[in-house]
Amino acid sequence: MGLPATTQLSGRQARVRRRLNTLGLGTFVVTNPANIRYLSNHVGSSGVLVIAAAGSHLLVDSRYREAVNLLQQTPSACPGLTVRDVPGSYEDTLLECLGDLGVAVAGFEATHVSVSRHDTWRRIAERRGLTVAFTATERVVEEARVIKDASEIATLRDAAARLTPVADVVFRAVRPGQSERAVAAVLEAALRDVGFERPSFDTIVASGPNSALPHYRAGDRILSAGDLVVLDFGGVLDGYCSDLTRTVSVGPPSPDARRLYDAVYAAQQAAIDAVRPGVESVEVDAAARNILQARGLGEAFGHGTGHGLGLDVHEEPRVSRPRADLPSVRLGPGMVFTIEPGAYLPGFGGVRIEDDVLVTDAGYELLTTVSRELRAL
Amino acid sequence: MGLPATTQLSGRQARVRRRLNTLGLGTFVVTNPANIRYLSNHVGSSGVLVIAAAGSHLLVDSRYREAVNLLQQTPSACPGLTVRDVPGSYEDTLLECLGDLGVAVAGFEATHVSVSRHDTWRRIAERRGLTVAFTATERVVEEARVIKDASEIATLRDAAARLTPVADVVFRAVRPGQSERAVAAVLEAALRDVGFERPSFDTIVASGPNSALPHYRAGDRILSAGDLVVLDFGGVLDGYCSDLTRTVSVGPPSPDARRLYDAVYAAQQAAIDAVRPGVESVEVDAAARNILQARGLGEAFGHGTGHGLGLDVHEEPRVSRPRADLPSVRLGPGMVFTIEPGAYLPGFGGVRIEDDVLVTDAGYELLTTVSRELRAL
Repeated sequence: MGLPATTQLSGRQARVRRRLNTLGLGTFVVTNPANIRYLSNHVGSSGVLVIAAAGSHLLVDSRYREAVNLLQQTPSACPGLTVRDVPGSYEDTLLECLGDLGVAVAGFEATHVSVSRHDTWRRIAERRGLTVAFTATERVVEEARVIKDASEIATLRDAAARLTPVADVVFRAVRPGQSERAVAAVLEAALRDVGFERPSFDTIVASGPNSALPHYRAGDRILSAGDLVVLDFGGVLDGYCSDLTRTVSVGPPSPDARRLYDAVYAAQQAAIDAVRPGVESVEVDAAARNILQARGLGEAFGHGTGHGLGLDVHEEPRVSRPRADLPSVRLGPGMVFTIEPGAYLPGFGGVRIEDDVLVTDAGYELLTTVSRELRAL
Repeated sequence: MGLPATTQLSGRQARVRRRLNTLGLGTFVVTNPANIRYLSNHVGSSGVLVIAAAGSHLLVDSRYREAVNLLQQTPSACPGLTVRDVPGSYEDTLLECLGDLGVAVAGFEATHVSVSRHDTWRRIAERRGLTVAFTATERVVEEARVIKDASEIATLRDAAARLTPVADVVFRAVRPGQSERAVAAVLEAALRDVGFERPSFDTIVASGPNSALPHYRAGDRILSAGDLVVLDFGGVLDGYCSDLTRTVSVGPPSPDARRLYDAVYAAQQAAIDAVRPGVESVEVDAAARNILQARGLGEAFGHGTGHGLGLDVHEEPRVSRPRADLPSVRLGPGMVFTIEPGAYLPGFGGVRIEDDVLVTDAGYELLTTVSRELRAL
């Protein structure tokens, strides 16, 4: 799979430039590392990308210089890129760059620039005698990232499919006497073995009463017969995240555990069935939520139904109840997100089932391929 | 080791309150997750802590509610804590909380609040008819965190010592024919085996020419005789980070590789020797840099000499050249940081040697305990 090709980057940049044009912005400062990667293929915790009227400018310090030079000699080179060294502070070099370009107005990513950093930009501009107006923007690059392109879909499909052999390995590791931490270690080694560069997030192995804690990770608890065990894991492949949850039973499940599982399973199936272009994300959430509410588990399902997957493990679209700060999204082909309803009963345990879906022209494609039946291990 | 006790948290909160008093702030909004953990023992990617005139308020959504309730029943409970549910947006609940408390002025962490979030606070305050003035602050909690308390030192010492058995395992895995990725997998499994909850950062296994890229991670390259291999890794124990680099040779090192190693070794030793209370961090950096410059490797050492270690893998104090945005720090007992000079020759390879040191009353204690001699594997 590897890195997206130069032509793919050109397409992404063109989409972002069109959006900037509608905002009346000729210059745009990108500081979110995932957005920088999306537009330039530059990977790193530092770096600033300036999308200018003509071409773009990548500001990097010496740690990344050699890697950028190598990238620019490949078929995945960032088009029209000028690389600028950052000898000291990124903020100084950014203002120097904007000054050299004679920029009067620059858009910036208001969600990815701290109040402190923004103040620093203004202070340096003043010191340098520059009159740059910084214009806050929201979701300029994120909006482009919601619809995955062919290279992204191929990588996400590959990443999700690789979780099947990982699940096979971890199912063999779940047995009475094992610690949660030991199962997590097996799981993370298996993620590496199938080629992931790292886990997408801290692996969750939550057993018995811990399974009722949706964001528990993995601890010293020893698995024992009758436990429900929530296994939530994923890996990063070429920068793209996969994310899967299966809940298993250690030995035969109790009738209560079986009932809980069946409810969550039905909720997840209903949400999956609801996915197709033109449907609102809140409808997908409601499909799952209505089933859990009808079974008296509305209160037991406190989180959202899903989240977008891509360069970030949590990105747009959010699949949740309607909320002022998380507006519903109309689903369109190329969107990729998780569907992961759960039900958590404090003191007893919990169940969550999670898969990754791609919205297609006709409906959906399930990217994860692990059976969703309740397993007794 | 486990979580810090309630009395320890009281001490930390008292230090922060003293600092807030000097700033004339009675209320303080903590949004940096590491700072929230430091002051409350609450671990999570979400949560807001409000330090109020009397007691403090932790805002968490349903995912974390049960975990917080359990914590509050232990000897590590956060003192004087009121827990407030977040049913929807954190920003709404925060403003509701500030309104209920009748707060007129609230400090906030300007480095950890985006321009977008800050605007949202102001908009919600206006909608609710509240007149809250948000006052930007810098380093209020970070300043307390620079000097580690007894619980933190014990955890950091334990974490650093556990890297020795990890290094033993990985040295056995370095041999011709192995891929960088396979060595990284062995390394991360070993981190788990000795009890770390996760790697502190993406493990680096950089071989041959890749070793000249300071921020390379691990790829498909196969190790071969004569390679220098930079192994940079660490684990998180009870939330605290360890960080170690060793550079090894696959088979006997060439004379050039030996010379490069000896230069970096001498630079690191000089920096370590410079550590004691009262010394400026820039002097520690200069001790390493002068040696590399004298050997014609000044240009080959592009990064800083070290960084603080604690709940974050990169925190204060920074040990680097004097820079406007990274002022020098006078070393004091209880500070913990890395010393990691390196030299990178594009096309040939690189060497970095990194250890973790604690500043003591008398000088320093080396927390990492792996031999620093060049190994031929």
